[in-house]
Amino acid sequence: MTEQEKLPENVVFVGQKPSMAYVLGVVTQMSNGQKEVYIKARGRAISKAVDVAEIVRRKFAQESRVSKIEIGTEERELENGQKINVSTINIALTK
Amino acid sequence: MTEQEKLPENVVFVGQKPSMAYVLGVVTQMSNGQKEVYIKARGRAISKAVDVAEIVRRKFAQESRVSKIEIGTEERELENGQKINVSTINIALTK
Repeated sequence: MTEQEKLPENVVFVGQKPSMAYVLGVVTQMSNGQKEVYIKARGRAISKAVDVAEIVRRKFAQESRVSKIEIGTEERELENGQKINVSTINIALTK
Repeated sequence: MTEQEKLPENVVFVGQKPSMAYVLGVVTQMSNGQKEVYIKARGRAISKAVDVAEIVRRKFAQESRVSKIEIGTEERELENGQKINVSTINIALTK
C-alpha cells in the first residue's frame, strides 16, 4: 500500500507531516461521526503514530480510547530491487 | 524512569543501540526461561521497539507471540525546567 492509494475514510496514514496534521485528520473524522478511526504507520513514522493517538485521546477526544493495537511486518522492494522488511502499526481509536 | 535504573529481568528497554542488541537481549531472556518479556521504549525509539518485537517473533522465537501492546504518555522535565510529554510503548512477547 502506498500513501497515494485511496484509503477508507476512517484510516489516517501517518507519514512525514507534523503530528498535528494527522491529529486534525483523526479529530475531523470523529466529528463527522466515525466511531472508530485507524491510525496506521510504517517504519520511523510508527513513533509519530503513537504520538497522534495519545494527543487525540488526551487532548481532543477524551471520551475515546485505544481499542486495539496491532504490529506487523511488510516486505518492500527498493528501487535497486533489494527487498527489505518494514515494521507496521495499526492503532484503533474508538469513541 | 531512566535507563540507568535497575529494570526487572524480563524488561528490555530500547534506546539508541542498534536493534540487534535489543533482539539479543530478548532472545537471551527467553533462553533463560522467561515466558514473557516486555519490550519498552519512549519517543523516537518506539519504532525500534516494534522492529525488535517483530524480528524476535519472526526470526528467533517463532513460537512466541505479541500478547499485549500498551501505549501511554509520560511527562518529562527538560534541563531548563520545561515539561514535555513523551509517548511510550510496552510490548509483551509471550512464549
